Amino acid sequence: MRIAVLGLGKMGAPMAQNLCKAGHQVAVWNRNPDKAAPLAASGARVAASPADAVRDVELALTMLADDAAVERTVEATDGLLDSLPAGAVHVSSSTISVTLSARLAALHAAKGQRYVAAPVFGRPDAAEAAKLFVVAAGAADAIDAAQPVFDAIGQRSFRVGAEPHQANVVKLCGNYLLVATVQTLGEAVALARGSGVEAAALIEVLTETLFGGVVHRGYGAAIARQHVRPAGFTLELTLKDVRLALEAARGAAVPMPVASLLQDATLTAVRRGYADADLAALARVTAENAGLS
Amino acid sequence: MRIAVLGLGKMGAPMAQNLCKAGHQVAVWNRNPDKAAPLAASGARVAASPADAVRDVELALTMLADDAAVERTVEATDGLLDSLPAGAVHVSSSTISVTLSARLAALHAAKGQRYVAAPVFGRPDAAEAAKLFVVAAGAADAIDAAQPVFDAIGQRSFRVGAEPHQANVVKLCGNYLLVATVQTLGEAVALARGSGVEAAALIEVLTETLFGGVVHRGYGAAIARQHVRPAGFTLELTLKDVRLALEAARGAAVPMPVASLLQDATLTAVRRGYADADLAALARVTAENAGLS
Amino acid sequence: MRIAVLGLGKMGAPMAQNLCKAGHQVAVWNRNPDKAAPLAASGARVAASPADAVRDVELALTMLADDAAVERTVEATDGLLDSLPAGAVHVSSSTISVTLSARLAALHAAKGQRYVAAPVFGRPDAAEAAKLFVVAAGAADAIDAAQPVFDAIGQRSFRVGAEPHQANVVKLCGNYLLVATVQTLGEAVALARGSGVEAAALIEVLTETLFGGVVHRGYGAAIARQHVRPAGFTLELTLKDVRLALEAARGAAVPMPVASLLQDATLTAVRRGYADADLAALARVTAENAGLS
Amino acid sequence: MRIAVLGLGKMGAPMAQNLCKAGHQVAVWNRNPDKAAPLAASGARVAASPADAVRDVELALTMLADDAAVERTVEATDGLLDSLPAGAVHVSSSTISVTLSARLAALHAAKGQRYVAAPVFGRPDAAEAAKLFVVAAGAADAIDAAQPVFDAIGQRSFRVGAEPHQANVVKLCGNYLLVATVQTLGEAVALARGSGVEAAALIEVLTETLFGGVVHRGYGAAIARQHVRPAGFTLELTLKDVRLALEAARGAAVPMPVASLLQDATLTAVRRGYADADLAALARVTAENAGLS
Repeated sequence: MRIAVLGLGKMGAPMAQNLCKAGHQVAVWNRNPDKAAPLAASGARVAASPADAVRDVELALTMLADDAAVERTVEATDGLLDSLPAGAVHVSSSTISVTLSARLAALHAAKGQRYVAAPVFGRPDAAEAAKLFVVAAGAADAIDAAQPVFDAIGQRSFRVGAEPHQANVVKLCGNYLLVATVQTLGEAVALARGSGVEAAALIEVLTETLFGGVVHRGYGAAIARQHVRPAGFTLELTLKDVRLALEAARGAAVPMPVASLLQDATLTAVRRGYADADLAALARVTAENAGLS
Repeated sequence: MRIAVLGLGKMGAPMAQNLCKAGHQVAVWNRNPDKAAPLAASGARVAASPADAVRDVELALTMLADDAAVERTVEATDGLLDSLPAGAVHVSSSTISVTLSARLAALHAAKGQRYVAAPVFGRPDAAEAAKLFVVAAGAADAIDAAQPVFDAIGQRSFRVGAEPHQANVVKLCGNYLLVATVQTLGEAVALARGSGVEAAALIEVLTETLFGGVVHRGYGAAIARQHVRPAGFTLELTLKDVRLALEAARGAAVPMPVASLLQDATLTAVRRGYADADLAALARVTAENAGLS
Repeated sequence: MRIAVLGLGKMGAPMAQNLCKAGHQVAVWNRNPDKAAPLAASGARVAASPADAVRDVELALTMLADDAAVERTVEATDGLLDSLPAGAVHVSSSTISVTLSARLAALHAAKGQRYVAAPVFGRPDAAEAAKLFVVAAGAADAIDAAQPVFDAIGQRSFRVGAEPHQANVVKLCGNYLLVATVQTLGEAVALARGSGVEAAALIEVLTETLFGGVVHRGYGAAIARQHVRPAGFTLELTLKDVRLALEAARGAAVPMPVASLLQDATLTAVRRGYADADLAALARVTAENAGLS
Repeated sequence: MRIAVLGLGKMGAPMAQNLCKAGHQVAVWNRNPDKAAPLAASGARVAASPADAVRDVELALTMLADDAAVERTVEATDGLLDSLPAGAVHVSSSTISVTLSARLAALHAAKGQRYVAAPVFGRPDAAEAAKLFVVAAGAADAIDAAQPVFDAIGQRSFRVGAEPHQANVVKLCGNYLLVATVQTLGEAVALARGSGVEAAALIEVLTETLFGGVVHRGYGAAIARQHVRPAGFTLELTLKDVRLALEAARGAAVPMPVASLLQDATLTAVRRGYADADLAALARVTAENAGLS
């Protein structure tokens, strides 16, 4: 399959590598072209612009930082939108707003192109191991066309709706629950520590009984050892994601009181000096608020 | 081992049965004596009072509804406290307040008795299958003495501290996270539904990727099918547990902002007519607040 | 002074009348021209478009519903921006976003026009009586130029900063405190009623002692008599204002946890059927949540 | 009238002085007897115990720190309860729990004594100037009997119910609104400062327009000048009062979400080092959370 990958960050680069490995014909583009060199070594064509990358592909995959980067890459002169062939599929895997995703759907439809939102769950190590979870939404034929890509980059894919932006909603729900888990584990650990119970003992009980999922295990351990830096996922990015979830909630007129509280807790942590710290630092602020060193 | 079991409700009765099955010499007592009949059939001695039950045992296990029931059973005339032999162990498995647990430790110490707090995670079906998780705290020798009981009723036991009430803290932390999980899943489902995503699709993605623990699977499914009644665990009992967690937090001077919000959300659900509904009904109220039928 | 008034709703119409009364030469425009008739009777010239209204004025006052109405009136073809003479002052009294106000400042500067944000506190009856409070921000010379207008429509004006959008911030702070007052009075009344104290007795004590301001008196009385409809200020507009405050808070990176909670409470009230009810209906929902009829 | 005053702190001492001044025959008692000397100089009899103080009075006024102090003074050997003559009135002006107040009513009724709860609004300077506001509840005849006392210590008294504890509910409502006012003013000031508006400018607008009551004026000024110490009313006492309000809410099964949030905010401020600071320091913590120095 002829595929373009736009965005070669910590997630995009290994995804592109796995597409090369799977035998696809891959063109790559990155704003900073230095990042493209390892892909060239794997046989990818290094394109000079998004337009150049997508010119004759069947599918273009974008994996970019935020709404602004996606808008620039898609809509600018030399952008994806004007050059992607009619009938080709744009698979957007970035964590972006529901509003932008809905707008992209309309833009592509007007050009006779197809659009699938397919954000992923998983960290860079999962991207490298082709173990991502892909959450896709869009027209069935477009998702079918993209399936070989999902198979090459992930361990499993889900189809959650016919409107592309619905996949973004699901991604934001997942990220919201991630932040909620860290905050509530942090409160529980503060109560335990304030009562003389070791954090690790509490976390062991929780994760070996009721809460055995990977988020509880991973962040539970991080909170127990009071991990703050280096960040796997920074509080600044956490704040961005909570806001995207609340914007989606506003758009759908859905009250989310815990999410609102998390936004203020995250912003407070950012303003108190933890912007570059790991999401687990939410628990640090909770401990500070309890007078625990 | 000579064991008394006080409290033969949905949890206590199967726990007593499993102790009989394991070959222990069991005396049982229940406020309503009708519940004792099946245990008599299994070879247990039916006692006339807590005092009668514990008179010559090595270990007394209490599994009662709340603080008031425990206080009555332990401290009343004909209660456990005055008749439990010196050196014997009182294992308290009820979900009670940290304050009461600390007070029981002092009462038993003054009598030369030993005291272990050992609340459990698991529903009646887990109790029947001897698959409970036991969270124990207290002096090592006392927990050692109680270990055969834990082995007979549970699949695994944990030791979380030398002060008995610390086990109660861990139990309350677990219950707090349970309620937080239901509330936050409910908010996520409301956002999904409000955006046209089916609840079941969201829950599948969440539980098959990041949140694979039993609570997320069980309550996720319940919320997706809008389960409200009959209750596995009522909102009235949920409210009790959230309050116990917040009382413990107050005692330890630990702010728990999400827990505070959950208390109001649970009380609101109770006052809006869901007192007897399942904990999953928190998600129903969240949906109502979002104008979703 | 030659003045244009754009927007003749419940606030704009009496403001325009008072400018006529004060002897100014007034041109008026309203999207729905029917509303202009009474002003014509008072000697105002009825303009066919914003552009027509402002063509030769020294000052243009806009009093419109929201951001969208202001953008349309200012930036459309036949809008205010292209026709307001250089040096003339645009006084924006609408409750709009801080972002839009900052953008208007830049647009006017680029045209050599002057811009003052001057939102007002007060209801239509205060507008009629020329008893508004005017909160102004902008360059000193521009506010000086607008002072005769403030004197004609209000009982007092304040200067709160050199950047026009700062007046909008102050207005949103006031509206936030208004909503917070209603919500917290509602909670206090629920506690009182739930304890057998009459709402009116509580409100009398509060307003005759510590909380004697007009908001507490007015809304306290409304809550005590369980007023819900007709609305003086609807919950839908309340929600808009809370959102504007939170958007400003987001822009300034300031956590406002009570404001966040109010947003969800207001949205919940709206979705539960009170969109068209008075702001005082927040207390009704609080009472319902407490099981009070 | 023969009156005993028990508790000669910053409030009780001037209240006793004003009763002397009004010509009543006053006996006084204080746990630390040094505080009684100035009252002796004004003609009061200094009693050796609560019992000694109340032995032949028509009315006993208690003004003590908290529930524990009241229980000790009333119920101890040599306490008020056993010695107050039948038919005499106990007027309790302390800020105590609703539960204790209800219990006192029952204790006094059993002794044939009368009981009025009459907490006051006002600081020590108001107590000295006999300008307190008295909020009374209880049987009409008992309040009638106490009226001369209210007239001597206050500028105005209110009757809010026939059950004494209802006056305590009203007092706690007032204190809740006080804390809510400080927190919400603090959030508004943080938004203003974060937007370049001076705190004093915002406070002037608010207090000269919509929020002209004494609490808004006093605390608004304190927040604007970033007052933290010395404390007029400490955050530790604030926390006590918020908890009493929430206990009352729990007793009445009334959700109070803003009050819950205030409890955590106050506890956080206490644990972050502001226990001895003034209530106005809530705004300091809000500013710190916004990254404002």
